Amino acid sequence: MSNSEHTPPKKDVESPATDNTTPAAETGTGFGVAPITRRWRREDMLKRGSLALRGLALLFSLLAFIIMASNKHGDWKDFDKYEEYRYLLAIAILSTFYTAGQVLRHVQELSTGKQMLEKRTSAMVDFFGDQIVAYLLVSSASSAVPLTNRMREGADNIFTDSSAAAISMGFFAFISLALSALISGYKLSTQSYI
Amino acid sequence: MSNSEHTPPKKDVESPATDNTTPAAETGTGFGVAPITRRWRREDMLKRGSLALRGLALLFSLLAFIIMASNKHGDWKDFDKYEEYRYLLAIAILSTFYTAGQVLRHVQELSTGKQMLEKRTSAMVDFFGDQIVAYLLVSSASSAVPLTNRMREGADNIFTDSSAAAISMGFFAFISLALSALISGYKLSTQSYI
Repeated sequence: MSNSEHTPPKKDVESPATDNTTPAAETGTGFGVAPITRRWRREDMLKRGSLALRGLALLFSLLAFIIMASNKHGDWKDFDKYEEYRYLLAIAILSTFYTAGQVLRHVQELSTGKQMLEKRTSAMVDFFGDQIVAYLLVSSASSAVPLTNRMREGADNIFTDSSAAAISMGFFAFISLALSALISGYKLSTQSYI
Repeated sequence: MSNSEHTPPKKDVESPATDNTTPAAETGTGFGVAPITRRWRREDMLKRGSLALRGLALLFSLLAFIIMASNKHGDWKDFDKYEEYRYLLAIAILSTFYTAGQVLRHVQELSTGKQMLEKRTSAMVDFFGDQIVAYLLVSSASSAVPLTNRMREGADNIFTDSSAAAISMGFFAFISLALSALISGYKLSTQSYI
């Protein structure tokens, strides 16, 4: 069922770009190769795309983490007096570690060409991990929104602004990870039948 | 790529259950059939499983909808004075309609054996729909939790209890739909390569 050997996309086969100009007699020879190279390209693009999305998620959750952790201005303006903000901080830290680990693993796999996990396991870990962290991120960001809204009705200062910024970063991280989970789902769907 | 004709699981082929008692000479004849019937069984089970999960999600979101909509007890104890509860109600209604539509469609497909949508489209609709509604449900339920917690610190009455019940139903609906989205992802991964 699972194919453990990994065939990296070959860059030197570039026939599809010139296929349109070849005469009808030659089209027959390129017939079997074109779909395969197209598939390699698509998979390569997906790999880079999901790496970029995870990088974005790492950036956004790191920002949410830093902004919220430094959001202490004395008196009632301390983030750790509110459970919503503590929740957001906790999930931002967790998401930072998760996405950092994923980005490291995928960069290493792209550069060395070796797989740390078996291919199917890796796709499963990607899919479930992204999904779960995305659910946690959207939950924490939504729970912090009403409190901030209510505070801003009374006062609009650096504390509420920083909270709003951290919440936005949480939402951006969620969107990146949700898209990445969709790509992981697609990968899970195609990789075992090559 | 996509195979539009649908082969329903055949119940009359029941060789795997008695395969263990057949002599070695007969095992050769059952060799090609057993994996296929096993696959049919698994797909049938998954179909029923996802239908049951969607049914549960329908039940829970209907409960959340009814409990929250009837949560008016005068004075400050009206759900429509709080944006979190209005959000929860809106998403519960949306989720009720979505899951009701899905359950109707799948029941009709199971009973008539005809597909309303093309198979690949149907799997895509299932996967993306479940995913999006699950995100909305977890977001609305999490946003309503802190407000209810804070109210219950002051007073514990029928209003806060009903709110807590509606939130729990929202979370249960989320869990059902998240599991259903996983099954849809699995289906999306297997159905196009039969």
